[in-house]
Formats: sequence, structure tokens, C-alpha cells
Amino acid sequence: MTPSPSSRPTVAVFGLGSMGYGMASSLLQAQLPTVGYDISPDQEKRFKEQGGKDPGSRKETAAEIDIVVIVVVNAAQTEDVLFGEEGIAADLKPGAVVMACTTVDPDFARAMEARLAETGVLYLDCPISGGAVKAATGDLSIMASGTAAAFEASAPALEAMAETVFRLGDQAGPGSAMKVVNQLLAGVHIAAAAEAVTFGLSQGIDAQSCYDVISKCAGTSWMFENRVPHILEDDYAPRSAVDIFVKDLGIVTEAARKQEFEAPLASTALDQFVMASGSGFGKEDDAAVAKIYAARAGLELPRK
Amino acid sequence: MTPSPSSRPTVAVFGLGSMGYGMASSLLQAQLPTVGYDISPDQEKRFKEQGGKDPGSRKETAAEIDIVVIVVVNAAQTEDVLFGEEGIAADLKPGAVVMACTTVDPDFARAMEARLAETGVLYLDCPISGGAVKAATGDLSIMASGTAAAFEASAPALEAMAETVFRLGDQAGPGSAMKVVNQLLAGVHIAAAAEAVTFGLSQGIDAQSCYDVISKCAGTSWMFENRVPHILEDDYAPRSAVDIFVKDLGIVTEAARKQEFEAPLASTALDQFVMASGSGFGKEDDAAVAKIYAARAGLELPRK
Repeated sequence: MTPSPSSRPTVAVFGLGSMGYGMASSLLQAQLPTVGYDISPDQEKRFKEQGGKDPGSRKETAAEIDIVVIVVVNAAQTEDVLFGEEGIAADLKPGAVVMACTTVDPDFARAMEARLAETGVLYLDCPISGGAVKAATGDLSIMASGTAAAFEASAPALEAMAETVFRLGDQAGPGSAMKVVNQLLAGVHIAAAAEAVTFGLSQGIDAQSCYDVISKCAGTSWMFENRVPHILEDDYAPRSAVDIFVKDLGIVTEAARKQEFEAPLASTALDQFVMASGSGFGKEDDAAVAKIYAARAGLELPRK
Repeated sequence: MTPSPSSRPTVAVFGLGSMGYGMASSLLQAQLPTVGYDISPDQEKRFKEQGGKDPGSRKETAAEIDIVVIVVVNAAQTEDVLFGEEGIAADLKPGAVVMACTTVDPDFARAMEARLAETGVLYLDCPISGGAVKAATGDLSIMASGTAAAFEASAPALEAMAETVFRLGDQAGPGSAMKVVNQLLAGVHIAAAAEAVTFGLSQGIDAQSCYDVISKCAGTSWMFENRVPHILEDDYAPRSAVDIFVKDLGIVTEAARKQEFEAPLASTALDQFVMASGSGFGKEDDAAVAKIYAARAGLELPRK
């Protein structure tokens, strides 16, 4: 449903990486006036040429924005967009909404919500799931929590970007908490897929047979089916990098520790991603965690 | 396809537990004359009343059997069926085939194949996957390896019991190796599901929401979707018990160690099942591994 011109809010997207660029494109596609910001001037230029509004000065633009979508790498960058040297929070009008899509500790989401509320700015805690392809087609899953007012103000952007919106609570926190639970499983399952495929190699099972059989058996997972093909194709171009799971499983284990919750599988999986990063694979696709399993056991992964 | 009477081999099934009973019933359903043995005389009687042949003396029966299907708990029981005090191996006719369906170390499968070959008895290394429901309907997945002669001799029983037969090699070993790879993933995924659901509780996410959202996101797995409902229903009646994964992840870590392969996630998951067993939950459904996570963090699992 295309909103009528009078009800078209102006959107600013911060972070034009593979996810953010796709989401910004979905917003344009839905006819919402959208401005894109990125640390890379090339990405900003590219988005403007695709139909984005002129970024102009952040300060002047901020006063016109109805919806801020933040899709940066981590909590520190999210805080910087809002409250850093060039932070926009002070210039946002009351009733504007900040949609925070980055994976962060739920406590951070709660803190941001409270800080923005001081100036009447709304906050939607709304991490995303689905990858760059679904971001570009407006088919993301969004795990959202926030006040009724924050949901209402975000509605046009949610509709443009998401296939499914899980509404998880009436304040910030549960959205990020659910995303962190998802990342616990996602990280453990990627490392488990790498462990299983290389263990299979150690037992004389070739990687292709392993994929063909296991993906039809009770041992399968969404991540096994998605990441093992990267190993089979010897293709470690980063769809999502090893270092993302160093960060996200770090958030899991830190959030767990604060609640005195023991998460031994998450901790063990984190160790594998840290070792992969330390071995020089941090910027490669997260399936490259298989390389440290192979190296430790003197095994050869498939070569193309 | 129902075999003609002349081509109907006689089958003996050893182990009439939830899997074995279903498989024996599938064999009867396919009109194969089938005799069932179990440590429980009641189970033997029940199967005979359903149409099974009279067990008679094992020694006399053994000489008539064309296909032996072994569905016992572990390698020791498998060896006992064949070479123990009442073992049938010495009385099997040359050309008979032993289908070994239990999860065992691949080296054990290779040893059994060699030992039976001394008297001309064939061996199919053919672990099963799919659970008791699929066993009863003849819809199992079977990961099989063995000689062409072993596959040929087993064909009528495979057809009766399996929806999918993965043919993984021309000698014993790869069938068991693939099953062990599957069990690595299955065990890690069950423990990860328990870790994720209880971690969610620690972060204020109720278990039902966790299931509803994660099963639609990238963090899902076959085991997450299958086992978390047991936690939600507070139903720990054993479909497959905690102690099965103490055994199976033990086989994984032992097979890994023999190849000097480090399997940190399998080892960590094994620890959780061992702790669950040590806490008195060994005979409960494997989803009861969630109970030790909850106990360690002072959390309440759903109660019905």
C-alpha cells in the first residue's frame, strides 16, 4: 500500500552497508522520501543517484526527519549517530522515532529509549533478521518492541522493509533480547556445521555427501543449509563476516553473565570465531570458521 | 511392491523397543515372514500376537533366517546378539545378511563386517534416522554402506522400512560415520535449543514467544522445532532419552579423539547431557537437558 503524499514521512537511514542499503532501497521503493548516510561518501553518492534525498548538513536535515533507521555495526556506532560529535538526537523533533536495527545488549536499548524520551523522541527496539537479499526486497523479519506511539510512528517504514514484524513488548528490551537469543543459536549452529563437516572429513565422509545427507536428516539447521554450501564452493566472500559473530556472541555471553546465566555452548562457539579471527579470517564469510577446525586436524577443505 | 512368496526372505528383528517394534511391524506389513526378539518376553509375545513368527529356539531359527535386523541400544548389545552366549552368528547360513542399525563407532562396524565375512555372512552398516513414528510407517531414512551383495540381500527389508536409503560406500564404516556426524549435530542442537530457551528466560523472553519467533528465523534447527514443544508442554516422557545422547555424543568424541580431531561443541554438549543424567534426568526425554540450565540459573521452566 503506497501512502498518500501527505502521510509520507521523511526517513533517514544511517549505515548503507549490505543490509542498510537494501533497507534504504526498500523505503524508496515504497515512495518514502529517504536520505542515506554512511561513513563511505561513495555509498552516499550511490544512494542519492538511485533517488535518495540530498544528505545536506546533518543538523538541518535532522529537523525534518520523521523516522531514523539505524543499521550500523554495533552499539558504539549507534550511540555515535545519536549522541556523538555529529549526533542528531538534539535536533530531532519531538514525536520523531528512532528505529534501532543493530544487534545490541538489551540494556543498551533500554538506555537509549530513556535518553531519547527526555526530548520527546520515540524509540523502536527493532533488530532485523534475514540477510541482505531480503533487506533489498523488503522481506525482513523484524523483532520489535517499544511503545504504541513508537510502533505507530514507525509503521510506514516497517511496512516497507519487513515481511514479518514480531511485536514483543511495549518498551525497549525484548526486541534486542530476542535477537540475542537468535544470535546464540545462529552462532552455535554455524560453528556446529563447521565442526560436523570437518569431523566428517576426519571420518572419511566427503563434504558434499555430508551436506546431501545431513540436510535431509534430523541434524540439519537453517544455518547448516545456508553456510555449508559456502564451504563446498570454497567461497568465503563475506555475506556475513566471522567478526560479526565475534561481536554478536560477545553480546550473548556478556548479557548472560549479567544475569548469572551459564551459556557453555555460546562461549565455546565464541572461542571458535575468536580463533578464526585471530588466524586472519575475521573479514571472511563466517563459514570460514571451518578453516580453523581443518587446520587443527590437518584436514583439507574443498578447493575450487 | 509386495514380493512374490518365493522371493520372500525370512527376517529376524533383534530389539523390539520403540524403533525396533515399528520396523518389525513395517516388515510384517510388507508381507515378509518376521520373528521378533527382545529382552522383554512381553514384547516378544505382543509381536507374535500381531502376526510375528514363533521365536522358537534362537539356534534353530537362526539357520532359517535370510535377514537379521539389529536395533539394540549399543555396540555391546549388537556384539552380544551375534557373538554372545546365545549369539546367532555361528548358525547363520552363508549369504544371510546382518543389517546393523544401532549408532556405533565406524571401527566397530568394520570389525563386525570382517568377523562375519569369515563364515560368509554379509553385513550392512545401516544406522537409521527418523524416530519411532517413521519406523512404524516404514518411512525411515537409512544411512547405509556395504558390499553390493549385502545391499542386494537387504533390499526387501530396506524397501519395507525406509523412505530414503543413502548409499554411502561399498564397505562398512561410512554408514556409521555419517550417523555419528548426524548425532554430533543433533546433540549440539538439542543442547543449544535448551540453552537458548533458558537464556531467553533469563532475558525476560517467555518460552512460547521464543519458540514462535525463533522457529521462523535463521536460528532455527530441526531439533529446535522438534524438542522445544516438549519444554513448552512440560512433557518429558522419553521419545528419546537423555542417556541416548550421553551414549551417542560419547561415540562422537571417542571417534574424534581417535582421529586427533578436536570437537569442542560436541564435548561441551556432552557435558550438558552428562550433567542432566547425573541430576537424575537420564531416563527422561532429551529435552530435559533444559532442566539443568534452568537449575543452574535459578529459572522456572513452563509448568502444566
